[in-house]
Amino acid sequence: MAIRTGEHTGPTSGISGDKVQANLAILPKEYAFDFLLFAMRNNKPVPIIEVLEAGEFVSKYAKNSDIRTDVPLYNIYKHGELTETVSDITKYWRDDFVTFLIGCSFTFEQAILDAGINIKHIDEERNVAMYKTNIETVPAGIFSGETVVSMRPFKKDLVDKVTSITNEFPGMHGGPVHAGNPADIGIENINIPDYGDAIEIAPDEVPVFWACGVTPQNVVLNAKPEILISHAPGHMFITDINNEEYKD
Amino acid sequence: MAIRTGEHTGPTSGISGDKVQANLAILPKEYAFDFLLFAMRNNKPVPIIEVLEAGEFVSKYAKNSDIRTDVPLYNIYKHGELTETVSDITKYWRDDFVTFLIGCSFTFEQAILDAGINIKHIDEERNVAMYKTNIETVPAGIFSGETVVSMRPFKKDLVDKVTSITNEFPGMHGGPVHAGNPADIGIENINIPDYGDAIEIAPDEVPVFWACGVTPQNVVLNAKPEILISHAPGHMFITDINNEEYKD
Repeated sequence: MAIRTGEHTGPTSGISGDKVQANLAILPKEYAFDFLLFAMRNNKPVPIIEVLEAGEFVSKYAKNSDIRTDVPLYNIYKHGELTETVSDITKYWRDDFVTFLIGCSFTFEQAILDAGINIKHIDEERNVAMYKTNIETVPAGIFSGETVVSMRPFKKDLVDKVTSITNEFPGMHGGPVHAGNPADIGIENINIPDYGDAIEIAPDEVPVFWACGVTPQNVVLNAKPEILISHAPGHMFITDINNEEYKD
Repeated sequence: MAIRTGEHTGPTSGISGDKVQANLAILPKEYAFDFLLFAMRNNKPVPIIEVLEAGEFVSKYAKNSDIRTDVPLYNIYKHGELTETVSDITKYWRDDFVTFLIGCSFTFEQAILDAGINIKHIDEERNVAMYKTNIETVPAGIFSGETVVSMRPFKKDLVDKVTSITNEFPGMHGGPVHAGNPADIGIENINIPDYGDAIEIAPDEVPVFWACGVTPQNVVLNAKPEILISHAPGHMFITDINNEEYKD
């Protein structure tokens, strides 16, 4: 309600308890088949939670919701360029808009914390570090490009544990796509993330990489569609579903 | 090759060994988003194996394949009515045709046979019996309607066994949707199937029902699209994939 009324326009990390948060992508219906096919072919970076058909704005996963007002901040991109950041998209709404809600790593982060393992960027109150990689997605229609990953450093002896915890959430990016040398997946400088905040990796820590929900945003912008509306990074749609329901 | 050249135009049951056979649905791209979303929401009756994008006719699952010639018999429906049955659709092909290959129960039937369990309609060299039910699918766009099921009778003490065998193929309709009284799922007369051939159920046998790949055909025809091309029932597309690869 605080988000709907515009009272809360900040990031949603840590404010939704055990509720699933979702990435958002809104596109005109003419792009919807290509996008859904892209998601099906790239389930790890683009796990679909729900599709609202053309013109629909109520999510069945959040009571009395309105997708036009219930995300704290929206980015509006036209022909691949960010044109506006707003807290309400009601006046931009079109009857041909199809909405995709996409799984978010906040779900498995909660499971890692619940196992008593600290996550460094959360302790330091920063955004997670995200990088473009050389891991190609499987193209679909007008959409193609590289996978974006999020990175969290863990002590060597915890890597197997966080791998198995996150493997249990196949609908929320699942297990890591890589652990170890960033250059192996085309990341030249680990100190300069493409999105989010840099985080120090201690000598006894290993960088662990997960497919990231920024991938579809990145891939859609490559295609320069007439319009894309997404959440501003970190400013997610909060559902009524418990994280545990997405455990395999 | 015998199918491609038009030499074999008959049913494909029992001629593909352990290779996956697929149901076929070809639709203009304007219907493709609704259909893919329908499949996603109804994975049990409509398990997607592969999507060929607009104009594509080569399946990656069958070497040198051509979807326009490699099915023995095609049904062409216009505005919901069957207009022609042909063995080659090359001259009807359009660049906006999107092709969906959909899982088929022939895969789990092979697994049942491999477990040493007989299947009655195969022994009697008949087509499987299929029925419309009152089990609603989840609608998507213009597509809605009831689930079609296939029925196989088994002795009571084998029902658990065939259930667990078919549960292992979630991408090929998976486990049964019902076992027992046909009236429970809206089938009024088990002796009059809506598709395929009737089969006798002995007093010590239980009718077991699986979601069927005829469901999407039924649902698409409800919507009366400009054109739908599907395989003629029982005349499937044979891939190079082994059935076992679809085992969970």
